[in-house]
Amino acid sequence: MRTSIATVSLSGTLTEKLTAAARAGFDGVEIFENDLLASPLTPGEVRTRCADLGLTVDLYQPMRDIEAVPAELFARNLRRARHKFALMRELGADTVLVCSSVDPEAVDDDALAAAHLRELADLAQDFGVRVAYEALAWGRHVSTYDHAWRIVEAAGHPALGTCLDSFHILSRGSDPQGIEDIPGEKIFFLQLADAPLPAMDVLQWSRHHRCFPGQGGFDVAGLVRHVLRTGYAGPLSLEVFNDVFRQAEAAPTAVDARRSLLALQEEVGTGEDTPPASLTPTPVIPAPVVPTGFAFAELVAADAEPLTGLLAALGFARTARHRSKPVDLWQQGEARILVNTGAVVRRDAAHLAAVGLESPDPRGAADRAEALLAPVLPRRRAPEDAPLDAVAAPDGTELFFCDARHTDWRADFEDTGQTPAATATAGIRRIDHLALTQPWHHFDEATLFHRSVLGLDAEDSVDVADPYGLQRSRAVSNPDGTVRIALTVGAAPTDDTVHAQHIAFATDDVVAAARRLRDAGAPLLPIPANYYDDLAARHEFADGELETYRELGILYDRDDSGGSLRHCYTRTVGRVFFELLQRDGGHRGYGARNAPVRLAAQHAVRTASALSGGG
Amino acid sequence: MRTSIATVSLSGTLTEKLTAAARAGFDGVEIFENDLLASPLTPGEVRTRCADLGLTVDLYQPMRDIEAVPAELFARNLRRARHKFALMRELGADTVLVCSSVDPEAVDDDALAAAHLRELADLAQDFGVRVAYEALAWGRHVSTYDHAWRIVEAAGHPALGTCLDSFHILSRGSDPQGIEDIPGEKIFFLQLADAPLPAMDVLQWSRHHRCFPGQGGFDVAGLVRHVLRTGYAGPLSLEVFNDVFRQAEAAPTAVDARRSLLALQEEVGTGEDTPPASLTPTPVIPAPVVPTGFAFAELVAADAEPLTGLLAALGFARTARHRSKPVDLWQQGEARILVNTGAVVRRDAAHLAAVGLESPDPRGAADRAEALLAPVLPRRRAPEDAPLDAVAAPDGTELFFCDARHTDWRADFEDTGQTPAATATAGIRRIDHLALTQPWHHFDEATLFHRSVLGLDAEDSVDVADPYGLQRSRAVSNPDGTVRIALTVGAAPTDDTVHAQHIAFATDDVVAAARRLRDAGAPLLPIPANYYDDLAARHEFADGELETYRELGILYDRDDSGGSLRHCYTRTVGRVFFELLQRDGGHRGYGARNAPVRLAAQHAVRTASALSGGG
Repeated sequence: MRTSIATVSLSGTLTEKLTAAARAGFDGVEIFENDLLASPLTPGEVRTRCADLGLTVDLYQPMRDIEAVPAELFARNLRRARHKFALMRELGADTVLVCSSVDPEAVDDDALAAAHLRELADLAQDFGVRVAYEALAWGRHVSTYDHAWRIVEAAGHPALGTCLDSFHILSRGSDPQGIEDIPGEKIFFLQLADAPLPAMDVLQWSRHHRCFPGQGGFDVAGLVRHVLRTGYAGPLSLEVFNDVFRQAEAAPTAVDARRSLLALQEEVGTGEDTPPASLTPTPVIPAPVVPTGFAFAELVAADAEPLTGLLAALGFARTARHRSKPVDLWQQGEARILVNTGAVVRRDAAHLAAVGLESPDPRGAADRAEALLAPVLPRRRAPEDAPLDAVAAPDGTELFFCDARHTDWRADFEDTGQTPAATATAGIRRIDHLALTQPWHHFDEATLFHRSVLGLDAEDSVDVADPYGLQRSRAVSNPDGTVRIALTVGAAPTDDTVHAQHIAFATDDVVAAARRLRDAGAPLLPIPANYYDDLAARHEFADGELETYRELGILYDRDDSGGSLRHCYTRTVGRVFFELLQRDGGHRGYGARNAPVRLAAQHAVRTASALSGGG
Repeated sequence: MRTSIATVSLSGTLTEKLTAAARAGFDGVEIFENDLLASPLTPGEVRTRCADLGLTVDLYQPMRDIEAVPAELFARNLRRARHKFALMRELGADTVLVCSSVDPEAVDDDALAAAHLRELADLAQDFGVRVAYEALAWGRHVSTYDHAWRIVEAAGHPALGTCLDSFHILSRGSDPQGIEDIPGEKIFFLQLADAPLPAMDVLQWSRHHRCFPGQGGFDVAGLVRHVLRTGYAGPLSLEVFNDVFRQAEAAPTAVDARRSLLALQEEVGTGEDTPPASLTPTPVIPAPVVPTGFAFAELVAADAEPLTGLLAALGFARTARHRSKPVDLWQQGEARILVNTGAVVRRDAAHLAAVGLESPDPRGAADRAEALLAPVLPRRRAPEDAPLDAVAAPDGTELFFCDARHTDWRADFEDTGQTPAATATAGIRRIDHLALTQPWHHFDEATLFHRSVLGLDAEDSVDVADPYGLQRSRAVSNPDGTVRIALTVGAAPTDDTVHAQHIAFATDDVVAAARRLRDAGAPLLPIPANYYDDLAARHEFADGELETYRELGILYDRDDSGGSLRHCYTRTVGRVFFELLQRDGGHRGYGARNAPVRLAAQHAVRTASALSGGG
């Protein structure tokens, strides 16, 4: 039989994957959409590359959330499908995988599902494409292979068949005997995977994935309240089996653990009308003082020029300098960047070393941080400096609690008389967010730290595919979104390709800001054309809009309520790069959907740079 | 409230954990049994250390599989409990955790469970100990907190209460409201842990933990047979989402993937009376040729002396030398070790480089290996050598397929005239097994390689706690157990403390063999006394037997059918150490229960050696 492998099963760029598959003797490949989007090769070039390697393109995937949805949504789905079928013709792929819908708007109506799939197959046929419909084990209404087959059978279209996947069938414990009732010619594709059986039982969960209270999803505080109402007077004891904690240094893990209990006690007390006296932690924890904005971000570099050149191209001006130290303040709107060339103790790459947080009560914030075991830094960095309260975050970043009117830290700086370039609409208004890679063993600790010490809210963590492994990302923010930090972590402790940090600047006109940057000679991160072809399939744009994004490398995202995000990236200096970002319609996200494309593009630049011997 | 942390939540040795907990400000600790067993401190010394650090010992755990079992078994359990209660008195721990039974012999009888727990509590009271009974979420008959409480209430004993654990309660989705029906003074302990909620759903399983067919637990071949009976003629395609494969090099992963499909096709065909022609893989895979024993193990070292000194102390003699290369054959019984000082290309630590496998058909074995994509090595390592078929395993170990009568490779060696020391009962008979650490990204590949290429059977993988992370181990063996290889892997790609390899030698009298080794001046790995106290609680021994084990550092294990395993370890040379092992009563295991103690003991030796500046 012919053998094939999905590109998602292998690491690296699309071309690396194709080469590896061909060398290992596979006859064909399934092309995974994200691998194509992140590739600089056009679909036609991918087709040629595959042909040269002796590979057929056996499947393009996935197409999702197509069937059994309201008419207007289905019309949009068909529009998207038309784009993809055209792409498949270029790609030389004649079969597309359609996964059973997980769309919340999908209805439980087999006849409607069959009608929609028939219509999709009609369209596909025009492009010479076959549609293979597969039941996802977690499909909203269709989750078993026999159910998917009944719908395919009811649709009765020659270009519609089913796709069987051993994972989806066997993970549900379905009896595969029933497969024999399906005519072989209607099984358009067979995907195979195995999986470790006990991976999901509660025992494995318990022994490998526990974490400290506040780091997971249980309502531990609620449980503790019930226990305390019984009069229980014993200790609160942490019993946590966790594969990562087993490897981490014991000392910081123990601090993380204690902090978790302090925060838990506070949370338990907050929910009680009359909290038991036994609950009061020692020492008493001052109330949260939530930061109201970024006062500054401080970059440290041995050689300031690459950073300051980029800041100047972004429209920043060197508005002030420190009275006694080699630290400059670069400013535009409310975005303030300190560039420090005096704090480099060894040949560190340029990196973000400190963050100033605007606080309604800096001293109260610092007292809380100290009570929650954050390492307190000296109030004065040098004898002549203004006193500032500061603590260290788990990743070593220094956090300064600053007066919201900037009277404190700003006193150490004297104005240069320079002002930023005319800002108008192309200007940067403020720091939108920071993205900071966390030490691998302390990602959960970082989340808890930012929640408990700073009083920020944490969103759910998301997995983001990097060509060489999965990254995890979790955002923390204050309620009005003026302080946002995306905490990220690489795939493994060894993963040294992703230690980048970035500062995202908010602008009201990302297109104008990107143009100015480019015109100032600072290259933007190039984004593959395939990404824009996908955008065209996904959304409708005004005339010329998409071409502008394509020209400048602007990424686009739209949320469920119609909010939009446009963003683009500079090149990387040391460990730091900058993002320009425009939010409209209340979009609160960070463009996680675009992150795999951005990460692949950054890998591509690094590789090209290494090949050319550049920095 | 007082705060406490279980030692299992932190990494390192028991003393490292205690120090970290105290420094972070915890009031007390739960001492996890394995941490105590692996510690060189006596229970009394642990008590003193805790007191010095300002820590109370709030709980000792766990005691398992106590209640609702047949009378004879319960009598043994009480005997074990008596040992532990005495230990707890030394330790200064006044509460013991008893987990609800998972013993297959336990019966679903709450009255019997209550009676047994009452009897246990009676005994505990004599030692000043309280028993806290907890429902494990996967307990055999008792898995909810309210059920555990009903049994405790029915038992009605002042020294018996319940232990609540947020993980066990919330992971089952139990309503914690009912906790308030328990009197606070009967809640003897409260353990807290959080956990990520989606960790166990099928979507996460699907997106992170798929693997290639033959590496997991699904009957993929059975499913494929059903598909083929339909007349399906499309490709077999691998769609595998796997966090490790995403990080691994694409090229070896692709080879691993292809091998998986070749082996799958073979398996599918084997189960069919008339396999479809479409199934036959190209090239046709020759039938498995299962090895029948170890011909030799080859160690490579720049300096042979530390290895040969150890081999001599073990009773090996240098019986032959290679005709043209600096390779010596050291032999005792059927155990043959080649020591090669000529193959070192850089300053590698001493390591195991090659294995000779006795094969009923060396050429057939090599042909199969080649058809299954194993890298084939040159048949002659040097022009003057006898031709031998050899392939490379995924970890780089060279596997030689040798004639079972040793006529082939032995021809390159000439006898020295030396013979091993009198073997009698103290002698080594043969290599029992090899334990080889695998490259982190290729552990699943290694299992599939040994199963498919060598035709060995794989056992389930087991997790083994190392002080600094979890190791995973999976044994492969031939049916009669004359070839056994334990494949192991560390906690993370960075984990470089566990790259040890070892050779286990079978003996009929491990006590005599260990004595001879010690008398020859070769130190055995010292095992903490706590381990032997636990053995005394666990099993009954003849007079003096346990003292002998304690004196020599011999570990002991007994399987369910009464088979026993006695084993001890030498010090490590480079990356290699040796094990002496005696199997009785058909014991087929590797002493996984003892591995955490052995690993901790090896860490302790390394630390001491580093402190003294020794090698």
